[in-house]
Amino acid sequence: MITVLRYGHRPGRDKRVTTHCGLVARAFGADRFVLTTRDESVLRSLQDIVDRWGGPFEVAVEENWRQYLRGFRGTRVHLTMYGIPVDEAVKRIDPSQDLLVFVGAEKVPPEVYDVCELNVAVGNQPHSEIAALAIFLDRLFGGRELEREFRGKVRVEPMERGKKLINLEGSP
Amino acid sequence: MITVLRYGHRPGRDKRVTTHCGLVARAFGADRFVLTTRDESVLRSLQDIVDRWGGPFEVAVEENWRQYLRGFRGTRVHLTMYGIPVDEAVKRIDPSQDLLVFVGAEKVPPEVYDVCELNVAVGNQPHSEIAALAIFLDRLFGGRELEREFRGKVRVEPMERGKKLINLEGSP
Repeated sequence: MITVLRYGHRPGRDKRVTTHCGLVARAFGADRFVLTTRDESVLRSLQDIVDRWGGPFEVAVEENWRQYLRGFRGTRVHLTMYGIPVDEAVKRIDPSQDLLVFVGAEKVPPEVYDVCELNVAVGNQPHSEIAALAIFLDRLFGGRELEREFRGKVRVEPMERGKKLINLEGSP
Repeated sequence: MITVLRYGHRPGRDKRVTTHCGLVARAFGADRFVLTTRDESVLRSLQDIVDRWGGPFEVAVEENWRQYLRGFRGTRVHLTMYGIPVDEAVKRIDPSQDLLVFVGAEKVPPEVYDVCELNVAVGNQPHSEIAALAIFLDRLFGGRELEREFRGKVRVEPMERGKKLINLEGSP
């Protein structure tokens, strides 16, 4: 079970970035996405995608993030450009344990670095928490997450040119 | 030479997502980031990172994107959830040619699918153009892009806990 915890979301300003984080969590194989700040528009956008494109994928809010983080049983990974290289870190993750991936915004309290078992850097350059989450999950699953099938109402038929969307509802 | 072309940016609404795309382009090994819509705040944010964290990395604007795309000499890759799998696509890219990576926003004109040599999907689920760009470049470079050194004014010293930023200016 893999949970992505999105910390430090500022409603309005971060709406799109946080929605992208949630969509990446789902598409790259996490099971749950937890916001530490309630934002109905983000929750609705993510739920709409789950309803249409399939799950299982849970979206939740935990406003007491400190208690949630401290009480989590399993491995807690904090994505930060200051951490150890992702390729080294994934080798240390015990796949039999539940995993929490802490994705921060600009300012993350120092205690997060101490509470988490691993502080993991996807490169040590400034870029994007969305990209860091995607690469982390991709390394964790060795790329196989992209082949996962979701059971939704629609699916894409990959093609060289143009778009093909298959509607699975009402089919025999 | 790898250029990332960001199409369909709406100033205001897309500021943060487009800035993340530009930062990912730089951190994951592209050489240039081209916006099709001028947005001074995005250009400034990206230039500030290049000045402080290092290059070489060029940021530019090409408002006549159609002419720019059609006139590009090299391989044009369009990132789209409707395309062929990224792992199959990267094998078809000739590394001796210049590469243009077209990163769209929500609506991309149908002609883009025809003009580009490759329509490439990073999975066929809806997620994020930022994640798609990161994974595409990561696959292209086989992960080695994360080890690249930039010559900037600062750099991170990776560590297990906390943050360490080395100031390289004024050092002997």
